[in-house]
Amino acid sequence: MQDQEPQRPDLVIVSNRGPVGFRFDEQGRAVAGKTAGGLASGLKPLVADGRSLWLAVAITEADRVASTRGRIDANGIQLELLDVDPDIYADAYDIVSNSTLWFLHHGLFDLARTPVFDRRWHRAWDNYRRFNRLVAEAVAARAPHAADVLVQDYHLSLVPRLLAELRSDLAIVHYTHTPFAGADAMGILPTSVGRELAEGLAGATACGFHTSRWRDGFTSSLRSLGVEPPATFVAPLAPDTSGIEAVAADDACRVERDRIEELRGDMRLIVRVDRLELSKNILRGFQAYADLLERRPDLHHRVLFLALVYPSRQSVPEYAAYRREVEALATSVNGRFGDADWNPIVLDTEDDFPRAVAGFTLYDVLLVNPVRDGLNLVAMEGPAVNEAAGVLVLSREAGSHTFLAGHCLGVNPCDVVETSRALEQALDMDPVARAELAAGLVGELRSRTPAQWLDAQIQAARNRAPSGPQGPVP
Amino acid sequence: MQDQEPQRPDLVIVSNRGPVGFRFDEQGRAVAGKTAGGLASGLKPLVADGRSLWLAVAITEADRVASTRGRIDANGIQLELLDVDPDIYADAYDIVSNSTLWFLHHGLFDLARTPVFDRRWHRAWDNYRRFNRLVAEAVAARAPHAADVLVQDYHLSLVPRLLAELRSDLAIVHYTHTPFAGADAMGILPTSVGRELAEGLAGATACGFHTSRWRDGFTSSLRSLGVEPPATFVAPLAPDTSGIEAVAADDACRVERDRIEELRGDMRLIVRVDRLELSKNILRGFQAYADLLERRPDLHHRVLFLALVYPSRQSVPEYAAYRREVEALATSVNGRFGDADWNPIVLDTEDDFPRAVAGFTLYDVLLVNPVRDGLNLVAMEGPAVNEAAGVLVLSREAGSHTFLAGHCLGVNPCDVVETSRALEQALDMDPVARAELAAGLVGELRSRTPAQWLDAQIQAARNRAPSGPQGPVP
Repeated sequence: MQDQEPQRPDLVIVSNRGPVGFRFDEQGRAVAGKTAGGLASGLKPLVADGRSLWLAVAITEADRVASTRGRIDANGIQLELLDVDPDIYADAYDIVSNSTLWFLHHGLFDLARTPVFDRRWHRAWDNYRRFNRLVAEAVAARAPHAADVLVQDYHLSLVPRLLAELRSDLAIVHYTHTPFAGADAMGILPTSVGRELAEGLAGATACGFHTSRWRDGFTSSLRSLGVEPPATFVAPLAPDTSGIEAVAADDACRVERDRIEELRGDMRLIVRVDRLELSKNILRGFQAYADLLERRPDLHHRVLFLALVYPSRQSVPEYAAYRREVEALATSVNGRFGDADWNPIVLDTEDDFPRAVAGFTLYDVLLVNPVRDGLNLVAMEGPAVNEAAGVLVLSREAGSHTFLAGHCLGVNPCDVVETSRALEQALDMDPVARAELAAGLVGELRSRTPAQWLDAQIQAARNRAPSGPQGPVP
Repeated sequence: MQDQEPQRPDLVIVSNRGPVGFRFDEQGRAVAGKTAGGLASGLKPLVADGRSLWLAVAITEADRVASTRGRIDANGIQLELLDVDPDIYADAYDIVSNSTLWFLHHGLFDLARTPVFDRRWHRAWDNYRRFNRLVAEAVAARAPHAADVLVQDYHLSLVPRLLAELRSDLAIVHYTHTPFAGADAMGILPTSVGRELAEGLAGATACGFHTSRWRDGFTSSLRSLGVEPPATFVAPLAPDTSGIEAVAADDACRVERDRIEELRGDMRLIVRVDRLELSKNILRGFQAYADLLERRPDLHHRVLFLALVYPSRQSVPEYAAYRREVEALATSVNGRFGDADWNPIVLDTEDDFPRAVAGFTLYDVLLVNPVRDGLNLVAMEGPAVNEAAGVLVLSREAGSHTFLAGHCLGVNPCDVVETSRALEQALDMDPVARAELAAGLVGELRSRTPAQWLDAQIQAARNRAPSGPQGPVP
C-alpha cells in the first residue's frame, strides 16, 4: 500500500544512450556492462522502482542482441532498447545530432566553412526525422496511460510533438543537457529545419534546462522562428556524490591513486578530466599552463599537469582532428619546458573512470575551462571526493558556474592570460583560503541531488493543464 | 549668406581609411590616387563644402608623406591624415580590429581554437587603446566648436567616450558598418575589454546601424555588460549609383565588357564581386554551383561563373588561408565538370573596379551570399547598372536583405541546396518575371541616397540634449 505517499504516476524516460550498455561475455552472451556515468548513475536508484521504464537506442552490437529480449531488467531498471536501422541511426546521430545540433548549441561552428547543408545533409535530416518518429512510436506503444514521459536531449528534439500527436494522454517533458542556441545561431539552420525543431520541442508540456541562460536562448529562438514556446523550467542536474564516493573507496581507484602519487612525487598536481572534444577547451588549457611555466620558472619540476582526456565520437571528423591537435600541443609544451627529469604535461587518453576519480581525490587544482557547457558535472564530481583542499578553476561559460561562482576561480575560457593567472593564484593560495573555498564548494554541490532534478521534471509534467499538451500551460 | 537654409554645423568625419589614398608618382611625390569605393565615393560630393573635415589614418608610405602637409585638399575634401606609430597601428588594426572585432561582429570565430587572448593579444589591446586615444586627441585638437563628429566603424570603438571627455561641446555619433555581435558573442572578449568597448561606444551621443537587427545586438550587448546604451538609430548606407554609372560609361569599363563578352560567348553568366574574405562565403557559392552542375547536365557548356574576388587583409593569416581554399575549390570544380572547351568557373583575383562594374552590367545572375554582412553594397551596385534584367540571389544574412527581400531570391548562406536551387530558378526564370524583379530592385535601391544616410547621422547628433553627451538622450 502506498497511501502514506502521494501517488507518483508511471514514468517513462527516453534517451539516446541507455543507463547501461551491453557487451558480449566469453560465452558470447550480451550482458549489462558498467554504467556510463553522468545522467544515468544518479538516476538509477530512483527509477528502479517497478513503475518506471527507460527506453533507449541499441547502440552496440551487444545492445542489439539484448534488444531482442524485449523488456530487460538491468540492475533493477526496466529497460527497452530500440533497434534502429544502422543507416538511419548513423545519419541521425553522427550528421544531424553530433555534427550539427551539438555544434549549433555550443556555438562551435567554424562558420566560414561549416555547416554545409548539401544534399547529403538534407538526406541525413530526413533520417533524423525518421529516427525521432520511430522513437515516438515506440514510446506511444509502451507508455502506460497518463504516464509522465521525460525525453532527454537534442537527439530527440522532434519527439515531443510527434508523441503528443500520438498520445494526448501523456505529459511530455523535454530536457536539454547542452546549452541552447540563441536566435542568431538558430538562423544558421535551413529555415524549415529550424522551424521543425522549434515546433518539435514546443510540443512538450514543458522544456527544462540547466540554467536560465539556456532557457532564455530557447524561448528567444522559438519566438524568432514564430513558434510560441511551451512552459519552461530551470533545474540543474546534480552529481551522484555517493556513487563517486563508492568508486573512490574501491580497490581499482586505490591502485590508480598509488600510480598517480608515484608519478607526482612531491610536485603540485593540476588535473583535468574531460571527454576529448572541442567544447572542453583542452588546447587553451595547455596554452595557459605554458604561459604560467614561462612566467614562473620557479614552478619548473614542481608542478605536474595530469590531463585525463578520453576520446569520444571519433566518427565525427572534427573530433579526430581535435584529438591530434591536443596531442601535438602537449608534445610541444613538453618539448619546450620539459627535460629528462620532468614532463610538465602527462596526457592520458585512456577511458578509465577509477583513474579519473583517483585524480579527483588528489588534485591541488582542478581545471574545468570549457568554451561553453550546458552544466559540467566534473566541476562538482571532483570537489565531492577531493582530499587536498584543491581549488577549482572554472569557466564562466559552464552552466555550473551559475551557482559555483562564489567557491571557485572563474575564468573566461578564451582568455589564456586570465586562465594562467587563475592557475597561478590557485597554486599560490594559502591553506586557509583553499580550505574555505573547498568547504563552500562541497556545501554548494551537496545542496542538490539527482532526485531533486528528477522531481523537477515530474513537477513540470504535472503542471500541465487538464486538457492535455495542446492546452494552455502556465 | 546662408539665411535661406537651416544652418548646418561644422562636420568632422573620422574613419580608419581615408576617402582617398596616396601613391608616389614618377617624381616621387605623394599624389592622391583613385577613390576606394564604398563609403567614400558616395560621400565625397557631400563633404567637399568647406565646412567639413575628414580625419583618417596614414596607411601607406605615401599617405605618411602626405600627412606631413597638414590639411590636404584632396579632390575638394579637406583631409588630415594621422601618422600613427606603425607598431601601435599594426597591433590595433591587424590583431584587435581585423582579427578580433571583425570576427566577433561577423560571428566567424572557430571557437574551439580562436580567439586566444594571450599576452601578445593583451599587449595589442593596449595599443588599440593608445590608437583610439591618439585619434580622439587629434579630433579634439581640430574640431570646430560644437561640431558634429561622425566616427566610423569598429576600429574606433573607444573614440566616442575618450573624445567626449576631452570636448563636451561636440556631438559625437558612432556608426557601425558591420553587424554588431549579440550578448553571447560579446562575452567571448576578456571581460574588462568587452566592458571598455561598451563604455567607449556608450560615450557617443548616438550610435547608428544598417539594420534594426544589428542595433538590437548592440543594445542587448551593452545591457549584458551592465552599460546603459546611448540613443541609437537605424540608417542603411545607400550605393553611389551615379558614381557607378559614371564608371560603367567609361572607356576602361567598355574594354572590360568586351573581354567578358568574348569569354562568355553565348553562355549564361553568373557573377560574384567580393573582397576575398571569410564572411563572403565564396566556398559555399562554388559548392552550390557544383551541385547545380551535377543536377543539371544540360547546363554544361551553357553557363559561366565569373568570380571577381580581390584579396584583402593578407596580413591576417586567416585571410591568406581562406584565399588558398577558394583557389583550390575553383580548380577542383573545374577539374570535375570542365573540359578542354569549357571552364565552369573563371576565378579572377585582380582588384579592378572597371572590370567589376563591367561584370555588373552583364550578369544574368548576381550571387551575393555572405555568411553575415552589415549591409552589402554589391547587392545594390550591381543591379544599379545591370542591363540584362539579371536576377539577384541574396543571403538573408546580409543587412540589405531587410529591404531588398521582395525583389530577389533570398537564401540561407549555409544551405548549399537552397542556394543551388535559387541559382537554377534564376537561370530558368522567364523574361517577364526577371524584368519585374529587376525593376522592383532598381526602384528600391534608388529610393535611398548617401546624402540621406549622412543626414541621418547629423540628425542623430542634433537630437542630443543641450547639456552635452553626458546628459540624458532620447
